[in-house]
Amino acid sequence: MGSKIKVLFEPIGLRVEAAPGETILDTAIRGGVGIRSECGGTQACGKCIIQVRDQRGLAAATLKESKLLGERIHSSYRLACSAMFQAEADHVTVVIPPESVVRQRQFVELGSEHRVILEPALMKLNVEIPPPNISDKLTDAERLLKSIRHVQENPEIKLDFNILAELPKTIRSKAITALIWDNDRVISVEEMDNNNNFYGLAIDIGTSRITCSLIDLISGVRLTYISVENPQIAYGEDILTRVSYSQADADNGRHLQQTIIAGINELLKKACREVNVSPTRIFEAVVVGNTVMHHLALGLETKYLAKSPFTPVTSESIQVRAAELGLKINPNAVVYFIPIIDAFVGSDAVADIISSGFYRRGEPALLLDIGTNTEVVLRDKNGLTCCSCASGPAFEGVHIEHGIKAVEGAIDSVHIGAGGFDVKYSVLGNVKPVGLCGSAIIDVVAELFSRNLIDRFGKFNVNIQTPRIIRSNGVKKFVLVNSKESGTGTDIVVSERDINEVMLAKAAIYTGCSILMHRKGITQKDLKKIIISGGFGKNLNRRNVRIIGLIPNLPSSKISYIGNAAHAGAEAGVRSRKVLHLADKIAQETEYIELAACKEFTEEFTAALVLPHKKLELFENINLKNQKYSKN
Amino acid sequence: MGSKIKVLFEPIGLRVEAAPGETILDTAIRGGVGIRSECGGTQACGKCIIQVRDQRGLAAATLKESKLLGERIHSSYRLACSAMFQAEADHVTVVIPPESVVRQRQFVELGSEHRVILEPALMKLNVEIPPPNISDKLTDAERLLKSIRHVQENPEIKLDFNILAELPKTIRSKAITALIWDNDRVISVEEMDNNNNFYGLAIDIGTSRITCSLIDLISGVRLTYISVENPQIAYGEDILTRVSYSQADADNGRHLQQTIIAGINELLKKACREVNVSPTRIFEAVVVGNTVMHHLALGLETKYLAKSPFTPVTSESIQVRAAELGLKINPNAVVYFIPIIDAFVGSDAVADIISSGFYRRGEPALLLDIGTNTEVVLRDKNGLTCCSCASGPAFEGVHIEHGIKAVEGAIDSVHIGAGGFDVKYSVLGNVKPVGLCGSAIIDVVAELFSRNLIDRFGKFNVNIQTPRIIRSNGVKKFVLVNSKESGTGTDIVVSERDINEVMLAKAAIYTGCSILMHRKGITQKDLKKIIISGGFGKNLNRRNVRIIGLIPNLPSSKISYIGNAAHAGAEAGVRSRKVLHLADKIAQETEYIELAACKEFTEEFTAALVLPHKKLELFENINLKNQKYSKN
Repeated sequence: MGSKIKVLFEPIGLRVEAAPGETILDTAIRGGVGIRSECGGTQACGKCIIQVRDQRGLAAATLKESKLLGERIHSSYRLACSAMFQAEADHVTVVIPPESVVRQRQFVELGSEHRVILEPALMKLNVEIPPPNISDKLTDAERLLKSIRHVQENPEIKLDFNILAELPKTIRSKAITALIWDNDRVISVEEMDNNNNFYGLAIDIGTSRITCSLIDLISGVRLTYISVENPQIAYGEDILTRVSYSQADADNGRHLQQTIIAGINELLKKACREVNVSPTRIFEAVVVGNTVMHHLALGLETKYLAKSPFTPVTSESIQVRAAELGLKINPNAVVYFIPIIDAFVGSDAVADIISSGFYRRGEPALLLDIGTNTEVVLRDKNGLTCCSCASGPAFEGVHIEHGIKAVEGAIDSVHIGAGGFDVKYSVLGNVKPVGLCGSAIIDVVAELFSRNLIDRFGKFNVNIQTPRIIRSNGVKKFVLVNSKESGTGTDIVVSERDINEVMLAKAAIYTGCSILMHRKGITQKDLKKIIISGGFGKNLNRRNVRIIGLIPNLPSSKISYIGNAAHAGAEAGVRSRKVLHLADKIAQETEYIELAACKEFTEEFTAALVLPHKKLELFENINLKNQKYSKN
Repeated sequence: MGSKIKVLFEPIGLRVEAAPGETILDTAIRGGVGIRSECGGTQACGKCIIQVRDQRGLAAATLKESKLLGERIHSSYRLACSAMFQAEADHVTVVIPPESVVRQRQFVELGSEHRVILEPALMKLNVEIPPPNISDKLTDAERLLKSIRHVQENPEIKLDFNILAELPKTIRSKAITALIWDNDRVISVEEMDNNNNFYGLAIDIGTSRITCSLIDLISGVRLTYISVENPQIAYGEDILTRVSYSQADADNGRHLQQTIIAGINELLKKACREVNVSPTRIFEAVVVGNTVMHHLALGLETKYLAKSPFTPVTSESIQVRAAELGLKINPNAVVYFIPIIDAFVGSDAVADIISSGFYRRGEPALLLDIGTNTEVVLRDKNGLTCCSCASGPAFEGVHIEHGIKAVEGAIDSVHIGAGGFDVKYSVLGNVKPVGLCGSAIIDVVAELFSRNLIDRFGKFNVNIQTPRIIRSNGVKKFVLVNSKESGTGTDIVVSERDINEVMLAKAAIYTGCSILMHRKGITQKDLKKIIISGGFGKNLNRRNVRIIGLIPNLPSSKISYIGNAAHAGAEAGVRSRKVLHLADKIAQETEYIELAACKEFTEEFTAALVLPHKKLELFENINLKNQKYSKN
């Protein structure tokens, strides 16, 4: 393996080894990575365009390739069918832009919909306006307001300055339609046309993925829901790298903002094309995201989010005109950023709280949004308390040798038979497996543990012999899928190192739950419900989640998985102004606990670093298959 | 005179005759028009650049000229020293751009200052802000607001979104200065520096001239007051031509807006350079102007201002961010447009009412702002009533054969001796006379009338013989200055046609006064004061104003001239937030009467079309020199 080159395909996060002389396309095909190539790799179609920032491991571009690439060659683009690995290459990262990806299908659920009464902040009002006459000396603005006030409750309602330019023309039509934002101000007027529709956008800016749905504001129906990699990924996969990048140069912050806005513009253009809607008919966008994404999208400084005492610029809800933000919908549209809670608990968590219905008073319960940072919210009789756990991206398939996201080709559930010989798994999509997504990673650890193949510390049991446990490069690994069955042509394995990543992640999350409960005097017995959201694919095994001690040990029936709840919360905001007001209330009233400042953190974290937990009494009722707990 | 070419030099409005073969510079020098020419007309310096939109009367540009003009040749620019009149030329209009004008000095007074207590809407507040710490989880925005609310009365005070981008950096300085607009919102924060100054701009956008003054907001002192021709003049000297231009093409309105904003930017740059102030230190601009200028500057449609029922888009005060308007001062600065009253009574009239103190309750009085449209405001015990009179531009020297504006070289007062032989006059600046400005035009008509040289209809008295009355091209003219004394080398005359223009103008203005008084039951005897503002130069003769019947016949001691009162009102707005609030109240409460809709208009206007007025009893107490009123 000495001369093998380690190639990482982003954004799916798949690792494949390559040999010198191979092209990137060769390697991708062998690894089961779907790159478009309509000409069959003959440098003719130019569709297999990919990006390699550090090209030292690649031979120079051919003349044919250069011609097909044009200007893009200066932005580190190459053609996968032409770019060839050189002998001296070591690690190469290949970024596949969305337009070159064959497998776009995602298997993340959109959060279970918490029903809201359709009452968008954006209200449509048809009014007939008498023409001006010499004895009635009202200005155009006054005549419009008079007609609106006649049928609308708020006497203080105002006109946005930006509608004045078109007002004189519009107001002289027979009847007009005014769009009123939150009963407070008129953001648009147009000639009345009963065929006109009005749309709203719900946007969730995730660190790795942006989701977007288009909602008909008259019927409340979602017309389409699509997503795209966050294009900021080119400046760092994780948040901290992007924060550092934004500090490195005075213009970088603005550049990251432009990148994210451009990404959203591409996405919404696609959504609009798909359902044949003009972007100028979109008059409202509700945006959620973690605090760093929120700040970057608004062009706010992120420097102080990343260092103690972790101070956001602002936490209140923010309204910006679409034109000012550069969003290519109606220029007068309101872009509404749901408020954040703190530096590590963003508006995505507020949206989770909304769409899960967690804001309602009820029995003690936990809400978790599992990602690179995992937000945990505890509900007790006094209200909501939250914290953020630095869980790392293991459950998103990152830092896991064969981890990938919940895309086509991902193994999403695993069952290991007694003795560790018989492995069953399911794959997303009708293809050969190429890696494991989060739910499968949890399954593997839980199954290895319950079959006694690993001990409480995540180390392989030396007393058990199975050909599936191999040693490679000095690290023990469990072979889940052998090279003949896999889509990559190599074994798909889970190593002790991977298991260790999972242990760190689950310990971080459990610690968050545990400290919140402890601080509020809630025991595991008091807890009546746990709701999990995140990008796991639909097959999250609720029993295995308990076996590895990721969350407090409640019966499976009391654990529910609700998919992308943050996006669903943004949609609820588009559908209801009351939800937007509720979001302000939630953000203000949710107490935040900074785990880093908690004295008990180290002790709690250490206790959670074994399977399922140091305090075995909390996990006694789980019926493990072969596992004999070693008291330690 | 058959082959003479009639040349009109704009913007000063001077008419000079030229011969074929002469250059524009020759004609200008002969006519006393100051055009820069540093090389002495040898096509070397390129300083004598002028604009001729219709060049059919001119020979084509020479090679030398084309080179010196460069790109500008495509925008109808020429060099005055090179552009030669052709034999077939008839009428040629030459526009002298500000940079080519030698005589820039204006003699219009800045309105008498109505003293206000210094309390600008823009308040400076120095606050020390404790650094963030882990146990005090406030966002930057919350910490700033907390510190401000600690010392400031309004608990609802808000932050402008646009200050958030810089806030994290600034708030970590030892102490900061916040700029608060009208006790309501924070528009800027910066590191505290006691040497920092803050400035405000007062701007009056006149149809023909823009004035601008720079005010130190800490001391209230005016640092400089300068003015420039309104660059929109290239699209029509009068308002209606510009309104038509703005309708002719979809982009024209925007183009006129850009032109006016560019003009203001040039002007403020000059003002700042003059007193060494950085434009970014200007955080406030208060703008007044007539309604068309107000609408054009804000990019609002002017179409419906010009046709019945003459409807403005909006009349309320408007605040725009400087960056949004394109004004090159601090991007976060507030540009505050004082409210207008109606389509023909703009915010300049509101500013007049402010700076004259006319808004105060008091004895019945009239306030006139004389221009192309003359605004008349009547005060009685119930408040203010106003109207607009289509007086035409005669008092600004337009449509008067030798009329010019109140610039250097303008005759500004005239005295005619008995018999019409002896004429005395004064000239603005230490130069030979080149024309008459408004105050002299009034003097001439009043003197001719009181010396019995013209009758009550403005016709020359056939019974009086004086060599000063000549006949040229079939029109009778009075020679005020003969060709030897004049700066133009030709006689400076006043024709019967000119007198007729004055009669129309004064009748329009008197009719406005008269109808307002009639409607409110105020007689000439009730009236205790008349205040006149406008661009007349300082020597307005209050007795002659009465002799021609321009205004009701009050003793001169009760008539006062206050110069450019509108600009002074804008300055008062910069100095005091109470003035801005007062302006809203004035605009709302001043009643507007549409003269065109008044049944008595024709009768009143006809009665005012004789000297001094048909109802002689109203003017009996004026002691005329030789005039014998012919009862008619």
